[in-house]
Amino acid sequence: MERKKLLIDMDHVMADITSQYIKWYKEATGVEVKRKDLLGKPEDLAFPRPQLIRDFIHRPGFFRNAKLMPGSQEVIRELNQVFDLSIVSAAMEFPQSLTEKYEWLSEHFPFIGWQQIIFCGSKKNISGDIMIDDHFRNLGHFSGKKLLFTATHNIYTDIEGYTRVNDWEEVRSLLMRDFSFQYANN
Amino acid sequence: MERKKLLIDMDHVMADITSQYIKWYKEATGVEVKRKDLLGKPEDLAFPRPQLIRDFIHRPGFFRNAKLMPGSQEVIRELNQVFDLSIVSAAMEFPQSLTEKYEWLSEHFPFIGWQQIIFCGSKKNISGDIMIDDHFRNLGHFSGKKLLFTATHNIYTDIEGYTRVNDWEEVRSLLMRDFSFQYANN
Repeated sequence: MERKKLLIDMDHVMADITSQYIKWYKEATGVEVKRKDLLGKPEDLAFPRPQLIRDFIHRPGFFRNAKLMPGSQEVIRELNQVFDLSIVSAAMEFPQSLTEKYEWLSEHFPFIGWQQIIFCGSKKNISGDIMIDDHFRNLGHFSGKKLLFTATHNIYTDIEGYTRVNDWEEVRSLLMRDFSFQYANN
Repeated sequence: MERKKLLIDMDHVMADITSQYIKWYKEATGVEVKRKDLLGKPEDLAFPRPQLIRDFIHRPGFFRNAKLMPGSQEVIRELNQVFDLSIVSAAMEFPQSLTEKYEWLSEHFPFIGWQQIIFCGSKKNISGDIMIDDHFRNLGHFSGKKLLFTATHNIYTDIEGYTRVNDWEEVRSLLMRDFSFQYANN
């Protein structure tokens, strides 16, 4: 009996990149951007000085010191018992992030083995049964069930064929109900 | 008209890891192991002191300074014009290799964009039309055409369902004949 393949994105899903943007932006400019001002806008363009945001992503420490999304550790630990789980991050555009993301996972998700990690440029060659991601461009290629994880940039956009999940509690309810029972009854 | 997805492994396929083993082993022990003595044996067990081989893989510079497999640059440059090509390397077991492999690709294959690179722990979630790899364990998960690239460790093993290719000239003949014409006639 095969476990279902569950693929989980890192940025904005496991790691709270939005809070990291806000914090680094305030440190650089003194301006505290509010989360409500980011709603419905692309990540960089939501800030008055977009180039700063694009620079942050290339700077040492940006990914390494990101905070966890609430509930991510607990729920992913549970899901890891039931699913054939992999972490899939589009890390290749920012090569310094490769090591940072690996170390971040080792620190916060020590129960996830190296066998379960994929860093890629594009997600178009990644297959599985369920993908959780905050970007339509990543989910668009995917042939399995698409869970759109709510982030400031995608909050007003809903597209048919995507199931929105607003937080890790919703992911837990949905996946432990829909899939672990199916799995148990296979 | 979609290009066929071609996935290419790095170690022993693009990068001459066997020569790197032999060189580092000689530097460490003074013993020059001959390529013919490696034939048909697992990579590490082929050397009198296997632990040394396993140590090399974790040392800085091992992947970064590997030589190219003959013909790999020229043929991959050609294939990159015709196929939707990605490099897929099982790099996650050796985290220091992530940056080294990225830099090695940038140096020797500058025509391959970051969008085309995948570093993973396991290749079981990677899909496409054709995969070139020297390991049965990587090709085994794959649902497309499996090309087994000859390496010392796999030279005596043939399994139904795998097409053996001995060098990049053979890859060129096979893929440019079988696939680019199909592609052109679609």
